Formats: sequence, structure tokens, C-alpha cells
Amino acid sequence: MADQITKRAENYSQWYNDLVVKADLAEQSAVRGCMVIKPYGYAIWEKMQRVLDDKFKAVGVQNAYFPLFIPKSFFSREAEHVAGFAKECAVVTHHRLMNDPDGRGVVVDPSARLEEELIVRPTSETIIWNTYKNWITSWRDLPILCNQWCNVVRWEMRTRLFLRTAEFLWQEGHTAHATREEAVEEATRMVNVYADFARGTMALPVIIGHKSPNERFAGALDTLTIEAMMQDGKALQAGTSHFLGQNFAKSFDVQFTNKEGQLEYVWATSWGVSTRLMGALIMAHGDDNGLVLPPALAPIQIVMVPIFRKPEEQAAVLEKMHQVKQELEALGHTVRIDDRDTLRPGFKFAEWELKGVPVRLAMGPRDLENGTVEVARRDTLTKETMSLDGIGAHIHGLLEDIQANIYRKAFDWREANVEKCDSWEEFKEKIQTGKFLLCHWDGTAETEQKIKDETKATIRCIPVDSFVCEEEGVDIYSGKPSRQRVVFAISY
Amino acid sequence: MADQITKRAENYSQWYNDLVVKADLAEQSAVRGCMVIKPYGYAIWEKMQRVLDDKFKAVGVQNAYFPLFIPKSFFSREAEHVAGFAKECAVVTHHRLMNDPDGRGVVVDPSARLEEELIVRPTSETIIWNTYKNWITSWRDLPILCNQWCNVVRWEMRTRLFLRTAEFLWQEGHTAHATREEAVEEATRMVNVYADFARGTMALPVIIGHKSPNERFAGALDTLTIEAMMQDGKALQAGTSHFLGQNFAKSFDVQFTNKEGQLEYVWATSWGVSTRLMGALIMAHGDDNGLVLPPALAPIQIVMVPIFRKPEEQAAVLEKMHQVKQELEALGHTVRIDDRDTLRPGFKFAEWELKGVPVRLAMGPRDLENGTVEVARRDTLTKETMSLDGIGAHIHGLLEDIQANIYRKAFDWREANVEKCDSWEEFKEKIQTGKFLLCHWDGTAETEQKIKDETKATIRCIPVDSFVCEEEGVDIYSGKPSRQRVVFAISY
Repeated sequence: MADQITKRAENYSQWYNDLVVKADLAEQSAVRGCMVIKPYGYAIWEKMQRVLDDKFKAVGVQNAYFPLFIPKSFFSREAEHVAGFAKECAVVTHHRLMNDPDGRGVVVDPSARLEEELIVRPTSETIIWNTYKNWITSWRDLPILCNQWCNVVRWEMRTRLFLRTAEFLWQEGHTAHATREEAVEEATRMVNVYADFARGTMALPVIIGHKSPNERFAGALDTLTIEAMMQDGKALQAGTSHFLGQNFAKSFDVQFTNKEGQLEYVWATSWGVSTRLMGALIMAHGDDNGLVLPPALAPIQIVMVPIFRKPEEQAAVLEKMHQVKQELEALGHTVRIDDRDTLRPGFKFAEWELKGVPVRLAMGPRDLENGTVEVARRDTLTKETMSLDGIGAHIHGLLEDIQANIYRKAFDWREANVEKCDSWEEFKEKIQTGKFLLCHWDGTAETEQKIKDETKATIRCIPVDSFVCEEEGVDIYSGKPSRQRVVFAISY
Repeated sequence: MADQITKRAENYSQWYNDLVVKADLAEQSAVRGCMVIKPYGYAIWEKMQRVLDDKFKAVGVQNAYFPLFIPKSFFSREAEHVAGFAKECAVVTHHRLMNDPDGRGVVVDPSARLEEELIVRPTSETIIWNTYKNWITSWRDLPILCNQWCNVVRWEMRTRLFLRTAEFLWQEGHTAHATREEAVEEATRMVNVYADFARGTMALPVIIGHKSPNERFAGALDTLTIEAMMQDGKALQAGTSHFLGQNFAKSFDVQFTNKEGQLEYVWATSWGVSTRLMGALIMAHGDDNGLVLPPALAPIQIVMVPIFRKPEEQAAVLEKMHQVKQELEALGHTVRIDDRDTLRPGFKFAEWELKGVPVRLAMGPRDLENGTVEVARRDTLTKETMSLDGIGAHIHGLLEDIQANIYRKAFDWREANVEKCDSWEEFKEKIQTGKFLLCHWDGTAETEQKIKDETKATIRCIPVDSFVCEEEGVDIYSGKPSRQRVVFAISY
């Protein structure tokens, strides 16, 4: 099982690809760059959705649904947005197929050309702000806090399962506000929701920060991000929240009458996370044996494998297992008894390790006699024999420990690989070894670009909560004055 | 509020359109035929999804996700399927836009033409069976029971919100089996899941039956359907489940080794319901005052409207209301206190009636003195003053009564409008007045077509559970022998 997977030390990138496919998470489809998310992978995504959706609703966000297609002309309305998004996209030009007159299958009917081409949404600011125009006339109509769970398409040239695909699933929140302050507050609130989710549910120690102007969303005045470190020391942007100012309101002429009776443009935010989070989850926690899933996202939290030689042993062990299963389910856990009788226990152990199930219980005839069970942890790969008395409460606590331990491990890894750096020579060397470097930056796009050209490193963010970075200094590249350190890294 | 809505008796079709828009369920978008589902409408759809998804999982179905795009050539593989689905669809031909050399916005980049056009999925049998080919080699890999919640596009010429839109949301289940019997059983199981959902959750008394060969899904050997009667006596197909035989397995070469070591083609089913269910819900239960929502699907089950003149009255009433709200929420109900202080109670009453909230509680200073509350039912438009003692348990029971009553009302309506008919003259007259007619049919597509041409009526189904129809007779149109009655109606 695990021997089908490349070792991380050998080729981290290949390890990731192997894991996604062998653990039955996703695979390439017949359509270039589009993936099939398999049931086991989708079950994890569903858990992410459920937790996030509850968090959104807790801060007053409502779900809605907007069209898949966007008229081409909408992309010309917001100047920066068109440059950022209207380039590599799927363009619908016709609305009918017909039988090939030569009898070879079907062809596009040339008479069914659309008057205006439609773009499959790469993101929905334009169509949504065109809709909000009809929803907003007065300050009483504000704020609007809408989110949609949907698919989007960006025609990527080089794709990787979950990390960068032509079609992906995501949620996109779009809010409308009466004041700048309220919109800025909303953008901050939502990046914090993402960070809470990443830390608490995904066990991912993310850094919250602002993007540099270069790396902002096309059309945003400010982009907040959560950045995570993968096991190769590269950064992965896991979610973003944008303060859009009045840009889209102006492009789509969305004004409201304020309490003083004056017309004003509406203030906006948008924020999103995608199936890319699946990539972050896999890369942050997996090991050479396979996936390591935090209990909060594991479709199966506990797997039970019976050990037996004779049929009567099998029956007795399974009976006991069903009792334990009931006890665990009553505590809210998801349990699977792997009673497939064509496979050996060792094979099953390896398969569930590959799939990252947090806890494995094995039980044989001797355990029945002794009233014990073997408890194995996926995160530490340790096992111990325990009494069946109070096993429910024990496993319940163990799952909490595992969740905390996975976070702690990832956190310690990051801490060990973040350092301050004040020498350009050192920077060039260290950045290639997989480090997050906290460096002084003079605040110019020019310097940022030069550093990127020479090293491939980018400013991941100007951190707001994870490191104390405000201090006077000089830019690591230009030598010009700097007011604070920022996080440089090579990214996915 | 209600006076903005056309009366049903005046123009049923306009009543429906008014209701969808005025109750904030959905609206037309800037893209022809594509709708925006607004938060209140989407909240109902989410409730439908949750209940259905739980039912699917209870019968072993797993969710997954397959690509939005289907290569054009896939549609040529299954002959009937291409005729049924590959005609009116959205065709992606290019993957890039560029700045117009003349400086007028953006244009399609002619150099970015796709080698093979991609079709936005109208349904996913082809791409899914192309995927299953890689998942299935042995009987051990079967059955596969997958479902996906997604958007699909069918380029409809005449669209109506929820009932027929170019893009709609749905779920599509696709299962693969080792034997014909198992696949037939699965198709039956799923149509029963739909019927349970329609009856129990939507309060919709549907008829389960087989489609006539003419009305089958393109590529199916049998289509099972649930058919509901709307208040104008027209039929609405609310969900279908198809036994696909080995058609798609043969088209995509999906074979498995059976227990005897022989290669066989896999047996298939598919089944789906869509946002069309929203249309059925609205049309089946709404009245001239607006929506009537069954409690099981109401985003707000109980709305509370405070009555007061002075601020101290307002404070006292609201305080009591929050107590009652807590009591109701503890029983699992969703409650909203409408404390907007710029609107009068009468306006609020009308608004929540329009939105179909099942129970309205009104409370004023005199109620506080007497320990009472006014309880109004949306389904019957009746109200009574009740003691606050035990109000939680009373409302809990009342919601159950309302759910049952809405079903009963729709059921009685249908029963009153279904009749046996054995005279062609009578048929022609009655079918136009909004009746389901149980008639003998000779089983030929020819007769069916002639009846449709003359009356617009179609065979909605050959019922299996709602009426006793097996009896010898003669076809109402052709006079040829018939073995059973079928349901004729004019449909949406």
C-alpha cells in the first residue's frame, strides 16, 4: 500500500500526486485540467463545507445562487478586473449541436451563434454587482451578506489535482455596505473566520496578513490572506478576503440613498476558499504512509479491524465490535467496521493508514478473553493495548488529543522554518531550502518584482497576527528604509 | 402586499410569476434564461437538499463530483442520448479573451480555439460512465452508488423561473450494478425515496408510475416518475429514476469480471430532482395571499410580531417574546422576532403571509396582562388567542398539524380532479378543464402521439401505487384492446 507512494524526501511533488490518487481522493478526468473528486475526497470536502457554512451563517451570511455564465461585456466594466480574470477562461459561443451532414457524429450548428459570447464564471463579482444594482436603493437595504457555493473555471495551463485545476469548487461571499468602515470590518471578520477554520478544523497554523499591492485580487483595494507552510517549506495561500472599495459599485452603478438623503456608491467585499484547501490538508499533514486526517474532517474517525482464524472467533469479535461501535456513535463519532473477509488484517491496516483514518482499533480472540482492544493512532503511528472499560470516553479524548497534536506538529514545523533574515546573500540561499523569511521591505512593487525575478520568492503577506514585525530597518534588497518585516517564501 | 399578486382565478400563470418574484424567491438575471436564486428561495432549496441528501446516504449513496464540461464526441456514443440531449446546449469553443485591437473592450482570441468543443453538461451519464470505466474491473467493485449536486445547462427557448431555466441546480445519481435485477431494484428504490420526500417533506401527493416509451429519458429502458397535480389541474413531473440497462456500459465499454470469471457489461441507473421542485412547491400550495410553506421546508417556521404603542410596552412584549422564542428553539424550531420598528404590524402580517411562514404569533400589552398570545395559521388563515402556558408544546403540535393539513388539502384536491374516462368526446372536453384522466390505452406510441396532437395531453405515467388501473378495456382513442388505464393530463 504505502510502498506504492513515493517518499516525501525522494520527491515531495510526486508524493503528493501519488497520495491524491492512491487514497482515492481525486483523479484526472477526460477533460483537460478538470478533475473528478472521488467519494472519499468529496466526503472530506463536504465536512469542510458544513463547518464553514455554519460559521458563515453564525455571522449573518445567507446563501444564494447566481448564474454560471457572465456576458462578455461585463468583464470590460472594471478595468483591473478584466486584466486579472478575463484572459484564460471558457468562452461559450454557440447554443446548439447538430448531426454532422457527413454523418460523422455531431458538430456545432453554425446558425446557433450567440449574439454576445458568455464566459463561464472565473469569479462572480461582475454578475453579482449587476444584480445588486436592483436590490439596493436605500441604506435600509444594506448590508447585503450573500455567499454562494459553486463551481468556477479558470483555464490554467499547468494543472495539479486540487491545487490548480481548470474547474474547481469554492464558495464566494459578496457583501455590500453603506460605509467604508463597515466593509473593511467585514473583510477582516471573514479572514478571521477562515483562520479559525484553518486552525481549529484543518489543524493548519496559518498566518493572517495583507497582500502586497502586486499580489492583490484584481479590483481590490486590500486583500487579506491566510498563508500556510507545507512540509517542503513552500507557502500555500489557503483563503483570501478582499476589501473592494467602491470599484464594483461604480462599474455597475450601484448607489444608495444614505440616512441624510444623499446618493452614495456602495462599499464591497468578497472572500473565498476553494477545493485548494484539500491540497493544503494533504500536503500539511500527510506522511510516507499516506494521509493524516484531523479528526474534525475525517469521514471515518475510527476504523475497527477484526482479527480471527475461525468463523466462531469472527462472529464473537464482530459482536463485540458492534457494541463498541454503538458506544462510539452515541458520542457523535463516525465508525467503520472493516469486516471484508477476503482481505488480511495487515492489508486493511495499510489501507486505512493510507486513507488517514485517525484511530484504528484491532480486536482478536485474546482481546475478547482479556476485555482489551489494540488502539493505534494514525498521527504518531503508535499503538497500545487498552481495557474495553470506558473505551468510549477514552477514544473521545484521544480524538481531541490527535486533533491538537496534528496542529501542534504543523505549528512546530513552521516555527522551526521561519526566521528573520537581514542579508541578501543568506536570503538567496535559505529561501531555496524551504523557509519563510521575515525580511525588511521598502514597500515598492519594483523591489518585490526584482526579488521574485532573482529567487522566485514572493511576499506572502504583511502579517497582522502571527509575528511581531513592526520595526524600523532597511530593505534586504534595495537597502532603502523599511518600517516592518514581511513574509517572503516560495509558493504553490 | 397580496394586492400586488394576481389572483389565481384570474391568471394562474401570472399568479405564479408574481409569487416567485414578490416572495423574494428568484428573479431573472442578465443572462437569458438563467435565474438568480435569492436568499429566501435558496434557504428552501437548502432544506430540500439536506433532507434528500440524508435519505440518499441512508440507502448507501455517496456524493462525488464530475466535470462541468463534456467532450463533444462523448455525445455521439449513445445514439438515443445524443438525440435527446446534445441539441440545445451551451458549447465552449475558445479558452481565451483578449483586448480588442480597436480598443473596444474584450474579444474572443481567435488563436485560442479548442481542438474539440466542450459541452456544458446537460446531464452527466456520458462523462460519468467514461470515468466508471476506470473504476470497475471486477464484481468486487460493484455496486457503485454515486450522486452529485451540481448545475446543468439546457438551452431552453421559453423559460420560467424554477420550472424551466437554461441553467438549473439538481442532483444526479448514477449507479452501476452487476445484475439487471439489482439495477431495476435500485431505480425503484430511488423513485420511492423521491416519493417519500415529496409526500412527507413537500406535502405533495405524488403518483408513482412508469413513463410510456415515448416519454422515457433518452437512453433509458424504463423511466420511473413522480407526478404531482398543480392547482390548475396540470401535471408536473417532479422527479425521475431511470433503468438504463447496459446502454451506457456498452457505449463506454465498461465491463466487469463476474464471480464465474466471465466478462459482462455493467447495469446502470440514473435519477434526479432539480430546482423545479421549488416550482412544484409554490404551485401546489400557494394561495392568493402568497406562499404556503410546509413546516418541514420553511426557513422560518414561526414569526413573532410585537404589538405596542409606547416604548415600555415594546420592551415588555419583546422580553416575553424572547422567552417564547427560546422555548420554541429548544424544541428544534426556527423562529424570527420581527422587531423592525419602522413598519406597522399589519404590514408585517401581510409580508410574512406572502412569504408563507406557517405560524405567526402576535402579542401586545393586553396579552401580557392575560398571559396569552394570538396564534395565526398560514394554511387555514385562522387565528385564535391562546394561553402562554405550554405554548411550546402547542406550537410543536400545531406545526405537525399544518404539515399534515397541507398534504391533505393537496391530496383532496387531486382526488377531486382525477376521474376515469371512457369516452373520447368527454376526454377532449374534460382534459382542458384541468383533470387527470384515467383512461385505457392500447400501448402504442402512435395512439399516444395522436392524442397529444389533438389535445396537448400526454401520458403522465402508468401508475404503480396510487390507483388500481389493471383491468381489461378498450383504448379511448383507437378502440383497440387495453390491459390497464394510464394517467393522461396536460403538463408543465
